[in-house]
Amino acid sequence: MKKYEIIAEEIASAIQQVLLKRGDKLPSIRQIQVSKQVNASTVFQAYYLLEARGLVVTRPRSGYYVAGPLRSERLLPHTASDTGLPTTLQISDLVFTLLERIKDPQQIPFGSAFPSPLLFPLSKLADHMATTVRRMQPQDTVSDIGQGDAELRRQIALRYQLDGKHTDLNDIVITNGALEALNLCLAAVTQPGDSVIIECPTFYAALQAIERMGLKAIEVPSHPEHGLDLDALERAILQHKPKACWLMTNFQNPTGSLMPQDKKQALVALITRYQLPLIEDDVYRELYFSKQRPLPATTWDKEGWVMHCSSFSKSLAPGYRVGWVSAGRFSERITRLKISTTLATSIPAQQALASYLSKGGYDKHLRQLRHQLMLQQLQFSQAIHQHFPAQVRFTLPQGGYFLWLQLPGGQDSLQLFQQAINHNISLAPGHMFSSQQQYASYIRLNYGHPFTPVNQQAIATLGKLIKPVH
Amino acid sequence: MKKYEIIAEEIASAIQQVLLKRGDKLPSIRQIQVSKQVNASTVFQAYYLLEARGLVVTRPRSGYYVAGPLRSERLLPHTASDTGLPTTLQISDLVFTLLERIKDPQQIPFGSAFPSPLLFPLSKLADHMATTVRRMQPQDTVSDIGQGDAELRRQIALRYQLDGKHTDLNDIVITNGALEALNLCLAAVTQPGDSVIIECPTFYAALQAIERMGLKAIEVPSHPEHGLDLDALERAILQHKPKACWLMTNFQNPTGSLMPQDKKQALVALITRYQLPLIEDDVYRELYFSKQRPLPATTWDKEGWVMHCSSFSKSLAPGYRVGWVSAGRFSERITRLKISTTLATSIPAQQALASYLSKGGYDKHLRQLRHQLMLQQLQFSQAIHQHFPAQVRFTLPQGGYFLWLQLPGGQDSLQLFQQAINHNISLAPGHMFSSQQQYASYIRLNYGHPFTPVNQQAIATLGKLIKPVH
Repeated sequence: MKKYEIIAEEIASAIQQVLLKRGDKLPSIRQIQVSKQVNASTVFQAYYLLEARGLVVTRPRSGYYVAGPLRSERLLPHTASDTGLPTTLQISDLVFTLLERIKDPQQIPFGSAFPSPLLFPLSKLADHMATTVRRMQPQDTVSDIGQGDAELRRQIALRYQLDGKHTDLNDIVITNGALEALNLCLAAVTQPGDSVIIECPTFYAALQAIERMGLKAIEVPSHPEHGLDLDALERAILQHKPKACWLMTNFQNPTGSLMPQDKKQALVALITRYQLPLIEDDVYRELYFSKQRPLPATTWDKEGWVMHCSSFSKSLAPGYRVGWVSAGRFSERITRLKISTTLATSIPAQQALASYLSKGGYDKHLRQLRHQLMLQQLQFSQAIHQHFPAQVRFTLPQGGYFLWLQLPGGQDSLQLFQQAINHNISLAPGHMFSSQQQYASYIRLNYGHPFTPVNQQAIATLGKLIKPVH
Repeated sequence: MKKYEIIAEEIASAIQQVLLKRGDKLPSIRQIQVSKQVNASTVFQAYYLLEARGLVVTRPRSGYYVAGPLRSERLLPHTASDTGLPTTLQISDLVFTLLERIKDPQQIPFGSAFPSPLLFPLSKLADHMATTVRRMQPQDTVSDIGQGDAELRRQIALRYQLDGKHTDLNDIVITNGALEALNLCLAAVTQPGDSVIIECPTFYAALQAIERMGLKAIEVPSHPEHGLDLDALERAILQHKPKACWLMTNFQNPTGSLMPQDKKQALVALITRYQLPLIEDDVYRELYFSKQRPLPATTWDKEGWVMHCSSFSKSLAPGYRVGWVSAGRFSERITRLKISTTLATSIPAQQALASYLSKGGYDKHLRQLRHQLMLQQLQFSQAIHQHFPAQVRFTLPQGGYFLWLQLPGGQDSLQLFQQAINHNISLAPGHMFSSQQQYASYIRLNYGHPFTPVNQQAIATLGKLIKPVH
């Protein structure tokens, strides 16, 4: 990064963290020039960049002001009021029907679960794959069955090491994306009829897995900024004797919540005390906007009750379908489930990723990706502020690529969904994220795509479709 | 192929089909020279090749004689005596324990489920992958979710077309190998507690899937040459109201049986009459030794009750983990299951295979592969004939790479397994292929590896470990 980019980055980051609020006057060119020991043109370039991104506005003969974000002025979406009773689910068909309707590539993909595939270094990965697949040893097709490629597992273990967590290679099982890992974990610790704790709202694949496996869901309230309610969790454990808990600690889908570090520690202490297996879905962690990569709950797990699931699909290699679980005390059980359900993960894809990771380009790519997503969040949220009725409540997560919005006056998000589809705009209605009806007026919007004028126009259109309440 | 190779091939094929029996005198050089319109040296070369392969022996001043095979002299292994009652299984742990013990790459891999990876065009596939992955469109990572790459599905549909079966692209779902396809099919048509018909003996993954999903197995006798007993099947349907039938019609694992074509037609008529979903596991079909590629049962399926599962893992691309199901009336259900369990199959692997298939090298490779496997079967079976006690009964399948053997005098195959492992030789004990105890004195041997002197020695060692009965 050039000097002016570093300065712009620092200011954007301060805005993002609400150290600088909307309307605040920014330091003068001269002030920054002195404090950073750079010349004036560098500071001008930084401000120019921030202005081009819509983060800063100039007022003639006055200076530079923060144009956003709006965190301090926003109203947060409400949290679920109560923990639900163990419930047999019937939601999967609705989810599939909605997913079917939002997969048209001609739509504005606000309802999509995926960020733009253009954000990933696919051609660099292709180079690695071209090289590694030619070097693949025939014997690898047999030896990599089950747990997966040893070098890829080593690379993953090294990243746990960065978190200060030692991970045994034998505890890691490579899977067809995180989704397979999550499903294997759930299968490893439950029998039909068992109850499973999930967040409310939650990622719909958790609801679908529970329904498919004949389990019951206990939906525990999850705060849109801080995640699962631990008191409610403990009450649910005592009352319903669940066999597993499935949640996201970092940039939860759909809310974007980030569980604070001390809360994660308390979570691990709690599930360890009750010997409750925790399935931690951590696919968005690398997409943080703050200075520090957030740690997953598994970092504090000493007794192996956490099954930590992640993948490269959202951070590096969409379409390769390579994920993993670090499964603690459940690793043998999960390896066996893997062998008897899909046997192995595609070996060329595993070896290509192992090669890419070992060459050290990953962190540089991640910095760019995070920067881009953070920028898109700011642009997107400003457009929402500009075009949506003021009573729309929404999150401004510290990572990931989803916003979670509550429509005013309890208006139905399925109705908005239909109207938006008529304008060729997709969105994800709250109905997909809970079996309870309390999210019927919520929507999840994806800001993982570059903020083009077309997307800006689509936000304006959506804004007109949402009824203000007076 | 050169002329002499074609002639050798024809003779080998006649031997294989028992048109020529052990000890039969072969046509004279002159006879073949005339009938094939070739010169004498070509015929000599053909006979020399057959001799080198151990198929033909010369007797000085007499001519050439068939050295094998031994089909007419062999005793077939017995068929299971009765259909079992619906049974809750507890076999999966045993299977895993045995699989763990036979995965050491230092062992002679007679117990392996895989043929030698050296038999596949991995470097040619790598070229295709290197090219296609560089051309992969970012949008493919989203559009290929669920059913899979459209071009690969088209290539698969073209191969069904060769069988005279029209297949809708939308009926095909690409999976992580055939194993995922089979598991999805079973999940699509059963609920815990349901009964499922399988063959006795059967591929252990069927037993594991049934156990894992809380289903009951009805084991119907399967003949070592002609496959499932249809009368017993119908009785089991009437008596137990099963929800699915899972079987292999072509070169069944472990017996190698090939269901005759009229029996396949009768099978489809039967399951259609009872509206019983048929999961047809057809991963070995391309490995036929006769002139004609056998058809799968699905060819005669007009009403969509057959879910036909196969893959490229055993015929082309081990380790790529690309399989599929052509799922008839169940295709939407299976697509949804795929989306909610593993989402998609690795896209670079799919596109590499689509490219390879479209360039037309597949059939040439298959001819070579079949030729090699047929040769290995002959060499392997002759060594068995030479070294094993005469009372060992075994199959000589018309395709695939497994032999199914019955030890004399009911001696325990687990004990033989242990002794063989001590000699660094693996084998697959009959216990893995049935929940009944009736296969406790059977073994499955893999002849999918080139017949080296080391392997020949291992057969001799095994032969000494098997007790003859007098």
